[in-house]
Amino acid sequence: MASDRRRPKSSKNEQRATSYLSLAERLRAGDTTVTKELEARLKRLDAVEPTLKAFVHVARDAARATAKASDARWKKNKPLSPIDGMPIAIKDIIETFDMPTGQGSPMWKEFATKRDAAAVQALREAGAIIIGKTTTTEFASSHPFAPTTNPHDATRTPGGSSSGSAAAVGAGIVPAALGTQVVGSTLRPASFCGCVGFKPTFGAINRGGSYDYLSQSATGVIAATPNDAWIVASAIAQRVGGDPGFPGLIGPELPPEARAPHRLVVLQTAGWGKATDGARKAFEGARKRLSGLGIELIDRSGDPDIEALEHSISEALPLTLAINAWESAWPLGAYEVQNAKVLSGPARQRLADARKMTPDGYRGMLRRREDIRARYAYVAARADAIVTLGATGAAPVGLGSTGDTSMNVPASLLGTPAITLPHLQDGHMPLGLQLIGRKDEDADLMALAGWVWQNY
Amino acid sequence: MASDRRRPKSSKNEQRATSYLSLAERLRAGDTTVTKELEARLKRLDAVEPTLKAFVHVARDAARATAKASDARWKKNKPLSPIDGMPIAIKDIIETFDMPTGQGSPMWKEFATKRDAAAVQALREAGAIIIGKTTTTEFASSHPFAPTTNPHDATRTPGGSSSGSAAAVGAGIVPAALGTQVVGSTLRPASFCGCVGFKPTFGAINRGGSYDYLSQSATGVIAATPNDAWIVASAIAQRVGGDPGFPGLIGPELPPEARAPHRLVVLQTAGWGKATDGARKAFEGARKRLSGLGIELIDRSGDPDIEALEHSISEALPLTLAINAWESAWPLGAYEVQNAKVLSGPARQRLADARKMTPDGYRGMLRRREDIRARYAYVAARADAIVTLGATGAAPVGLGSTGDTSMNVPASLLGTPAITLPHLQDGHMPLGLQLIGRKDEDADLMALAGWVWQNY
Repeated sequence: MASDRRRPKSSKNEQRATSYLSLAERLRAGDTTVTKELEARLKRLDAVEPTLKAFVHVARDAARATAKASDARWKKNKPLSPIDGMPIAIKDIIETFDMPTGQGSPMWKEFATKRDAAAVQALREAGAIIIGKTTTTEFASSHPFAPTTNPHDATRTPGGSSSGSAAAVGAGIVPAALGTQVVGSTLRPASFCGCVGFKPTFGAINRGGSYDYLSQSATGVIAATPNDAWIVASAIAQRVGGDPGFPGLIGPELPPEARAPHRLVVLQTAGWGKATDGARKAFEGARKRLSGLGIELIDRSGDPDIEALEHSISEALPLTLAINAWESAWPLGAYEVQNAKVLSGPARQRLADARKMTPDGYRGMLRRREDIRARYAYVAARADAIVTLGATGAAPVGLGSTGDTSMNVPASLLGTPAITLPHLQDGHMPLGLQLIGRKDEDADLMALAGWVWQNY
Repeated sequence: MASDRRRPKSSKNEQRATSYLSLAERLRAGDTTVTKELEARLKRLDAVEPTLKAFVHVARDAARATAKASDARWKKNKPLSPIDGMPIAIKDIIETFDMPTGQGSPMWKEFATKRDAAAVQALREAGAIIIGKTTTTEFASSHPFAPTTNPHDATRTPGGSSSGSAAAVGAGIVPAALGTQVVGSTLRPASFCGCVGFKPTFGAINRGGSYDYLSQSATGVIAATPNDAWIVASAIAQRVGGDPGFPGLIGPELPPEARAPHRLVVLQTAGWGKATDGARKAFEGARKRLSGLGIELIDRSGDPDIEALEHSISEALPLTLAINAWESAWPLGAYEVQNAKVLSGPARQRLADARKMTPDGYRGMLRRREDIRARYAYVAARADAIVTLGATGAAPVGLGSTGDTSMNVPASLLGTPAITLPHLQDGHMPLGLQLIGRKDEDADLMALAGWVWQNY
């Protein structure tokens, strides 16, 4: 299967993973069928899942029935959408009426919510195949109860909290999967597993029925290509919009046309100090290559605005964790009363942190976040996008931690769109090149990412 | 029981319903016990519930156990909060781990979500007694599957969607109950049942675990007195805050000190045209009485700003219904696929309306709402508060409709705090006098309402 190549690419001459849009052309031409493609994906699943452990549930029968219905539509040249027949995996904090939603917690294991989340409803309406539910850390936070491994090296973490979604895409089981991110939960695993990761603007994808309530949490897409990430996100937003009260993802149904960036701001966040030698070297190489492609790169040297932004954004992680803690007083407080024994240590610690805070203190944190967002908007207006690493380095060895979030938390705090592309390497492992855009300008960021994808 | 008097009052010489704060003084003094008070409430429940039909579940055993624990705390003079031992009823779209959450829909009847919503968690942490779950219309929207009656006249509707909560408070079963409002679902039933209704600023009370996701929906309190409404709301916000990303209810734990309004704006909304003769007459009487209390009342006559506001706010209802429809694409779309037969006609119509809309159209509606909010803020800055009717008249006869929402939708659209006080009458039935305040200035509005309550 053409779209089964997903290892990190290091030259524009190497073939990129193929988008579902190309497959759609072949479906339209009758060169293949949704059912045939699905069976190949299921075969891949059977081959790698025993080691990968990316899924908590697979809905084979339902997937096959949906594929059959999709084939009938393609045969009549009447697909419901560009993603009709596309197999998509769902992070297990997002509700599905035919599969339980376990939230990565022993407390909710096999709990049947008996309804579809907004994103899942929309994907089904678009004809997509909901192939299964993927592992996540406890409550999509830090603690990994799941034993999921990295598709590029089974001794390493796939990252988290969208662990199974990134692993499934990275292993070629699905062309796309839903993730969520409040700190670094979409872009970090995408970077670790050699995938494209797309975290839209806060509120751009309807979170209804997703068990994440935090004021920075966004539903995102992990995919084999930028085009796949876009067509999945837009298929959702077109049908169920963004979060209530938010404008939702703004842009066309099909991927926006690729556009060359003229100028990028290099952001060396607090995570830079934690970057591995390999990651630093890879990023230096990326700077050279981007410059060679005619893109102007500016950074803090001699630029007090960028320096000031880097300074204020250096508190992104502690500020985010504090905001998350207060916002986790519920439901963690309720869960503690109901069954404290099955809460992880980190979850209990977060609840203890929340109880030391006050509403006034929280309001102060929100104001601080607004200050940093305003400062960012000022700098972001001066360039096409921000460029930085997708993670501090390769996925670390071991499954006890899902890795460092430092490179991803800025875009989460800012509420801005961010995309990681699997263009770099740290040793033998993939590493992401991250672009961060402006609030609600997701389509423009995707246009830039599409150009980098084609030309890097 | 002192706080059992809840009929509409028409003179400041008549005794007002007593706040739980007065009962707390008696508990502290050992003059009564939480258990004794609870048993009186349960006796009242047994007497009126066969006709009232306000509850879908009553948790007698749990309530008695909580009362016992509360008595132990009061005995040691160590209550957990001002509402320790207060019996509170919960609208059945708000999750409770020990009782199902049926959402007023045959589709979700007896569905056990197995966790507490944020507000319920906070109330339990504050020592309150979660006495039961109260009826609501389907998905807290318009269709009344529940047979709840008005405590003042069983041939009439209690209003909706917080039907059972208002009926239970109006009948003296509980001093306070949780409601929610996206159009008129807290203030209208409060007005119909002779209760105080408090809809805080949008986002002021954490909606986590409440099955209402709309961009105007707010958790509110229906209570016997303004003080009870405040201490319940603040007990929640102090513990679990507001919606994530929002400042939450701002103000003290105990009710703010009563403050006399100097100037009130009389707002004649689109609902005015639908007001009954009795309601108009009652409001004219209220104007006279408020003037007699030394309050300056201004209205549109000779005031182009107020006239312009009334003009723009006249579209509050159609704009709200259109926004609600788009935001209901999920979950109604998911429910339709899962079990279309049990959706009411109005729910199916709302879904059909949503499918005629586009994301761009929705964004236009959000901008229109912002325009109206800005216009309101301009006028609201010129007075202490807005005053208007709490409903277009008395609760109508019959249970097939929960009445007209026109008088309540402006504050919902605006996202501002609103309070209705049971000071008026339309025929033999209670009618509310509504005050509308400024965003995030809930405490000030409550201070004004407290003064009117004491002096009207």
